[in-house]
Parts: sequence; structure tokens; C-alpha cells
Amino acid sequence: MAIRTVVWGENVHEQTNKIVAGIYPNGMHSCIADALNSVPGISATTATLQEDEHGLTAARLAETDVLIWWGHCAHGEVSDEVVERVAEAVWSGMGLIVLHSGHFSKIFKRLMGTPCNLTWREAGERERLWLTSRNHPIAAGLPDSFELENEEMYGEPFGIPEPLETVFISWFQGGEVFRSGVTYKRGAGNVFYFRPGHETYPTYHDANVQKVIQNAVKWAHNPAARIANPTDAPNVPVDVAPEKIVERGPKLHHAGEDGYK
Amino acid sequence: MAIRTVVWGENVHEQTNKIVAGIYPNGMHSCIADALNSVPGISATTATLQEDEHGLTAARLAETDVLIWWGHCAHGEVSDEVVERVAEAVWSGMGLIVLHSGHFSKIFKRLMGTPCNLTWREAGERERLWLTSRNHPIAAGLPDSFELENEEMYGEPFGIPEPLETVFISWFQGGEVFRSGVTYKRGAGNVFYFRPGHETYPTYHDANVQKVIQNAVKWAHNPAARIANPTDAPNVPVDVAPEKIVERGPKLHHAGEDGYK
Amino acid sequence: MAIRTVVWGENVHEQTNKIVAGIYPNGMHSCIADALNSVPGISATTATLQEDEHGLTAARLAETDVLIWWGHCAHGEVSDEVVERVAEAVWSGMGLIVLHSGHFSKIFKRLMGTPCNLTWREAGERERLWLTSRNHPIAAGLPDSFELENEEMYGEPFGIPEPLETVFISWFQGGEVFRSGVTYKRGAGNVFYFRPGHETYPTYHDANVQKVIQNAVKWAHNPAARIANPTDAPNVPVDVAPEKIVERGPKLHHAGEDGYK
Amino acid sequence: MAIRTVVWGENVHEQTNKIVAGIYPNGMHSCIADALNSVPGISATTATLQEDEHGLTAARLAETDVLIWWGHCAHGEVSDEVVERVAEAVWSGMGLIVLHSGHFSKIFKRLMGTPCNLTWREAGERERLWLTSRNHPIAAGLPDSFELENEEMYGEPFGIPEPLETVFISWFQGGEVFRSGVTYKRGAGNVFYFRPGHETYPTYHDANVQKVIQNAVKWAHNPAARIANPTDAPNVPVDVAPEKIVERGPKLHHAGEDGYK
Repeated sequence: MAIRTVVWGENVHEQTNKIVAGIYPNGMHSCIADALNSVPGISATTATLQEDEHGLTAARLAETDVLIWWGHCAHGEVSDEVVERVAEAVWSGMGLIVLHSGHFSKIFKRLMGTPCNLTWREAGERERLWLTSRNHPIAAGLPDSFELENEEMYGEPFGIPEPLETVFISWFQGGEVFRSGVTYKRGAGNVFYFRPGHETYPTYHDANVQKVIQNAVKWAHNPAARIANPTDAPNVPVDVAPEKIVERGPKLHHAGEDGYK
Repeated sequence: MAIRTVVWGENVHEQTNKIVAGIYPNGMHSCIADALNSVPGISATTATLQEDEHGLTAARLAETDVLIWWGHCAHGEVSDEVVERVAEAVWSGMGLIVLHSGHFSKIFKRLMGTPCNLTWREAGERERLWLTSRNHPIAAGLPDSFELENEEMYGEPFGIPEPLETVFISWFQGGEVFRSGVTYKRGAGNVFYFRPGHETYPTYHDANVQKVIQNAVKWAHNPAARIANPTDAPNVPVDVAPEKIVERGPKLHHAGEDGYK
Repeated sequence: MAIRTVVWGENVHEQTNKIVAGIYPNGMHSCIADALNSVPGISATTATLQEDEHGLTAARLAETDVLIWWGHCAHGEVSDEVVERVAEAVWSGMGLIVLHSGHFSKIFKRLMGTPCNLTWREAGERERLWLTSRNHPIAAGLPDSFELENEEMYGEPFGIPEPLETVFISWFQGGEVFRSGVTYKRGAGNVFYFRPGHETYPTYHDANVQKVIQNAVKWAHNPAARIANPTDAPNVPVDVAPEKIVERGPKLHHAGEDGYK
Repeated sequence: MAIRTVVWGENVHEQTNKIVAGIYPNGMHSCIADALNSVPGISATTATLQEDEHGLTAARLAETDVLIWWGHCAHGEVSDEVVERVAEAVWSGMGLIVLHSGHFSKIFKRLMGTPCNLTWREAGERERLWLTSRNHPIAAGLPDSFELENEEMYGEPFGIPEPLETVFISWFQGGEVFRSGVTYKRGAGNVFYFRPGHETYPTYHDANVQKVIQNAVKWAHNPAARIANPTDAPNVPVDVAPEKIVERGPKLHHAGEDGYK
């Protein structure tokens, strides 16, 4: 079965900025979804901020294998309830790919537990992404480096936890570097952050960028059945302990009762 | 200068439960602080849930090198504002040691980005902690294993991110195992989670447990000056880019303006 | 195409010890290979110490996607040349699964850079493996824990580098714990160590153990084309530098020459 | 007590190349040792390839808290016996700092288990090192970035295992990036690789570079007593198992005997 992918787009700049609308007449999310649908084994749809529940109902997330997130100027408009719902979906096994300015999205900061801050400059400068991990599944079919002639600069220090793996590092013409592709695991969910994608440049039309996102969808997909209640902390009563033990000492709780949360 | 340590205690069971009050007549926080103050180079005070701002004002945190956290039944009563303030202090360089049922505290879940759930059983069973990393600073002076004759069981799977280092793993009489000592870094702050410490047993009177917490305070202490604004994402204008570049292409932002958050 | 898997067995105890021969009349390697061949998508063959070049010629390794390694009493008889050849194959992208007493094999120590030592006891005690990472691909289809009624004990501290991921932790009846399933990446090759498998017990006939090894083969398989010369350190002459630069300053090397090794 | 540091230098280029001899008239190792001795709490001496046992006798290593390694053209002349002795010292708790072309030293490759290869260019280009981990002890007192006007380029992919922490990333004028400061733990020993230091440039006279190495010595120092036999794998006989068990099932070994290696 194809990997059910939802590309979530904030969809604001496309409606308010002529340059962005010119590059992405159907929205950045549609451009990314088209690139994914061109690959056998991936089936991509889109969702946007403006839809009811931002297009991310519980029912939709339950049928989403991988969620892709692009947001920028409207992070604050995303409802906390939906953010928590997405976090639970990730913990239960949904893959998540966060793009570019999504570093400051509520969901990325929620899952990282850090500020996710960086330095930045919008000057259309050249970016060159270098592979640090040859033959990593996310880098399949890519050369050791590739260039984007015009991009926004993001610079270190990048306020993230130490990644599970660092897959790409970017070189910028203006003199900065950045960890552009990093992986994490949160619960049963695979998380990938990928830097490129400033809205005033045609980044998501770039073949190498598309290739990374296509690879990342396959990498992030966890084919196992979702974990039903990923935040549960079950009590294991004495009589079903794996080894026979006898209860002793003072107690605060009764057998089988819920713990505090 | 001594490491300025604050031991934060929820201080509820000590007031409401005779068993706990009997073991810790001055509160668990005081017992832990006493153990820390017995060590040259550490200066410990306490704070509790019941104090104004839970005893964790901005001024107090600014003068705290390491914060220790024990909570259980009243996690929900900790104000979100204080939690965010503590998180910022950690990112700016304050060390944080989370004890036992603090795995479900708001601050630990906030910094981990995961459910931090586990299985549990209150049966007074034997726990044996094993070192996985000999001569780790947190394990200085400890044998390869030590026992607590009566403890609550916490079992895997433990819903945490992959630790930076796993320092201790627990064996339980009833058949479970648990990653009992794990390290993280969040921003400039060192974070250590340490499992033992159920309130109905005299765990914090145990010499080995005290030794671990004393070591952990030294390990978590970052002597560098605090980072002033750990969540800032500064713009780097073209004219101060490290390398001389010429601005080009379309723009969304004006030079030097704030980015979106 | 099926994942081409080679199960390497030391094949000594099976020839010299009646108990082992009774449990594994065709050798442990054949038992493991049979379990793998029962799974669609895996094609397993065997190789043993006694064969020419231990059955691991350069040609054979070039056509091996995943190598499984079991050795115990004859680690020292494995030729250093073959060990280095296997290491290069891993760096170029071959998966490697090291089983049980293979923790002391030349190839595992070569790839870890550590002693890989542990404590041990052969008493037929009960082992219970706990998942720490639910829905990890290596744990697909497995319960949160499973038991082996008779196994050799391996105890912490286990002298390995901090794993990329810890997937299983074992509980032993005699009181020890052990990181039983750990992942690493070495070059383009995925490496998995899995603890169970003492030769005097029927461990490799156990359905859960077989499931782990089957899953691990799929996880370790890197479908990318092998990296041709995984130890090369190419010079990048000034005239082909990604950015135009002018050579300056004193030099030790001539353009394009080999570096020192 | 001061941290007893030995700066090991290959000391070949200084004897054979006028440029290098001009920059480092007493050898690179002496320049580094002088910088360390200027810091309270560090006591540095030197050792070179040409000395008996390369100056690294067992007795000397037993009294060395941190070893610094610089080598380039004569990696192959370092005796395997000394390499293994240094590795054992690291596992037992000695810190190790590997500089620049030491990425290809026998000891670094031995401890990493990977090729440690990279791309390179000797063109005197500008290097700018960026901090990725603000307030990391190794970066204490350093700005977010600093420059070396003339350096050799080292480029990704760098053939190392995923680091415990990435502390510095370099930007190069010619368009490459490199993980310039990475930490590892091997046994009880802290390991730090630091990139800068091509012999034809005055890198080790640079104040920021000196600061990094001074910080790294303090970070790498493990004050615990050395582990006596860091490769031992002791048997734990049934009668001293932490929990009372009864031996059962078939056996290969007799009680208390040595395991295979």
C-alpha cells in the first residue's frame, strides 16, 4: 500500500504575496505533494491552516503515515489542540517531516523541547548542502553535495537537541553553516527536519530537494500498526508481575489504580 | 564558589501521609538538601509548590546553578508560567536533575518532547541499579551495582527520547528493567533523570542514592555565564555577513527586522 | 530482489560438543539460515570458519547484503585479512548482525573501537528481554517483553560505545541486566548486536528470537549501491573547488597528489 | 593537582621542512604544550615519535591524564604495540585529544572503528569555525564563530561514527563544510577530535585554537582512578550471583573459569 502522506501548508504567503504566488500558483503544499505523487509508493494529499481543524482531524491523522509541515508567519494561529493531536500521532508512529521555517512551528518546538532558534538572513545567497552520511536512506541517489543558487541563510548555533543523526550540513555564501538535515525519534515516530525552502525562491521545484523529501517520506514511514494509547502508564499489579513476588512495605496506591499524571 | 543548588519538592505527601511524614519529617526536599550540603562545593536550599511562584521566581532561578525536581501527585498544580521559566533557565545553562515520579512533571515532559510514560508497581520490591558507564562522573565512587531493598517498580518501555548517555539500568525483583539514569542536553543546560525515590521508602537516606545526586549536581553544573536570551533568533544583515555578499532576488523581510515566531 | 544474507558460523562446538550437536545437528548457522529463508524477501546461505577464507571471499562479500556473525571459542582463528575485508564491506554498505558471544569477535571489536567486555555466568537461568523502543523495525510484531527460560547471563557494564539506539534490555534471574539489542552505523553499514544465543540452549529455535533476527536483516539492509572505495580521502584541487578561490600561502603537497595515510 | 597532559608530536615536518621549522622552531608539540602550561591547573610535557616507545611507555601513560595527538606523514611508523597501549589507557580513563591530520592516525581509527576519511585541499584558504553547542565546556569563553585566515580544507563526508556531540562545524572559503569538533566516549575515556592545525600555517599560535585545546584538556580529564583491567570479562559464579539461583541445564564451562576471547 502506498505511503499516505499529508503535506500541510500554512498557505498565507501564497495568498498575500505576489512573488510567492508566482512561484507556487497552487501553493507550496501542492508543489510538494505533486513531487511526492510522481514517485511510486507514495500517495500525497494536502491540508492547510485555513481548513477546519487545520485539515488535521483525528480521523485524518489516523490515516496519515507521514505528515509534512511548512509554516512561517502564522505559527501562532495553529491551535494548541491540533498541535497536541499531531504530537500524539507522532508518538504513536506517524512520521513527521518539518521544512524550513517550520523550525519555529509549535509542533517542532513541542517535540524537541528546545527553542529551535538560529540566525538568519534573506539575501538570495548560494547554499550548498553536503552529505555527512553517505548512502543514508534520506540521501539515496544524491551526490555528495548539491547547490541552491538562491536561498535564505540559516546559521548555527541551531537550538536543537543533539540529533540522532546529522545527514546534511549547509554551506552559505555569506559565511555561515547549518545542520540542514537532522533525524530524531519521538515515541514510535520518526522525525526529520530539512532546512531549504524559503518561500520567495523556487526551492521546492528543485530536483534534489524533491528527491530528499521523497526519500524522507519513505524513511519516516513506520509500517507497524499505530500504538493505541501512547501516553498511558499502566499499573502492573503484583499478581501479574513477570516474576512471582510478595507485596511488602507501606503503600500509597491501591492495586490496579491509575497513577498520578 | 559553591554550586548553588535548589531542591524543589512538591511537599504534599509529607503533609498528608503519615508514612511519608515519618520517613521525611522535614520533607523529602530537606533530606536531599541536607545530603548535598554535607559535600564541600555544593550549597543547597529548598523550594516547594506551596510558596509564591512555587519558590522559583525569575530572580531565584537566575542565581540557581542546578535545580533538583521531585513531584508526584500535584504535577497539574505547577503553573505553566513557572514551567516555561524553568525551561528557559535550563536552555540558558542551568542544570536540572529530575527525580523518580518527576518523569511525569510538566518540566520534564516539556524538555523531552515525549510522553515520558512507563509501567509501574508499588510492592516494596528489591531494585538493583547497574552502572553501564564505569567512571562516568555521575557514578564516581560507586560500585558496579547497588541495591535498594524496597522500591516502587518502574518498567520499560520508558517513553523518553534516546538519551545522550545511559548511565544506570535497574533490575527489579518482579521481572522488569528500566533505564534509571539518563543524560540529556537542552540548550546550554545539562539534564539528568534519576529513577529511585518513592516517597513511602527511605530511599533518599540511602548513601549510594545520595552519592549519585551529589555527583549529578557537579556534573550538571555549567560554570559558564548564562546565555542572555536563549530563544532569540537574530537577523544577520547583509552588510555584517561574515563574507562579503551582494543581496539579490526577491525578499519578504526588510533588513534587520524581527523574524516570525 | 531478496536480501542476500550470509549466516557465518564458527561451527566448532557443533563438531566437538554432543549437547550442541544435539540441539543444532546441522549447525547453528543452518538453523538461523532456515529461519531466515522462511521469510519472503530474504535469501540466506551459510559460511563457516573452516572454509577457504572462512567462506568470505571478496566476491562473496560483494554479493552479500547482510552478514550475520556467530563465534565463540575460535575468535582468534579468524584471519585478520578477512576481518579487514568484512569491515570494508560494512563501511561500503553491507549490514552486519553480531550475535551473542560474537561480542568478542575480531570484527565487532574492530568496528566498535572498545573492549566489548561484560560479565557472564553459564547457569541456565531465565532471561527476559524488554523492548525500550516500541515499534522499532527490529521489534516489529514482538510483545513488550519475551522470555528465554534457559540462557547464559551477560551483565553490565558492557564495554561498548554509546549505541545509536538501545532496542532491547535483558533482565536475568540471577540479578543482572544487559543492553541486549543495540544499533550502530559504521560508514554506510548498519550494525546490530543481539545478545541471546548460548550454544548449549535451543535459543535459535525460539520464535521470538527468530523474529528479531528476521527483522534485523530487513533493518540492516541498505539497498543503495555499495560505496566503491570507502576509505579513500580524495584531494580536491583548487581549480575544481566548489567556490572559486586563489591558492595562497606555503604548501606541503603538490596539486592532486595523494595525502598521507 | 594539575591535569597531567602529554602532547605527542610526530615531529617530522619540523625537522625536514623549512616552513614548518620556521613557524614552530621547537616543534608543534612544544608550541601546544607551552599554550597549555600557561593555564593554571594544567601541567603539560611532550613526547615524540623518535623517542623510545615513542615516549609513551606504560609507566608514562599511567601518569598521563590527557594525551594530545598530532601526526601526519608518519602514521605508519607508530608501533602497533604502542597504539594498543594507548587504546587501553583511554578505555581505563585517560582523555585523548586528536588534532587535525591525526584523523588518519592509527589510534584514532582504532578507537572509531571507521575509515575516518575526508576530502582535502591545501590552498591556504579561510576557515571559519562555528559553535553548534553554546556554552559547551570545550567552547568556554569563545565567540559563536572564529576565523583562521589560512588553513587546509577538510571536507565532508567525514568517515566517523555519529558523534556523541558535535561542538564545532567549519565553513571553508572554497565551498566545503566539516564537523571540526566532535566528542566521543570510549570506555571510561573522553575523546575529542579537533580539526585545525595544518603544519604550514601558524594555527597553534592562534589564541582561539589554544583556548579550545585548553578547554578540551579540562573536559577530557576524568579524575576517577583508572580502571585496572579495562578489557576483563569476569565470570560471576552461581554462588555469588546477586540473586539466589540454582544452576540448571547443560554447560560448556566450569565454574569460575576464563571465557574465550
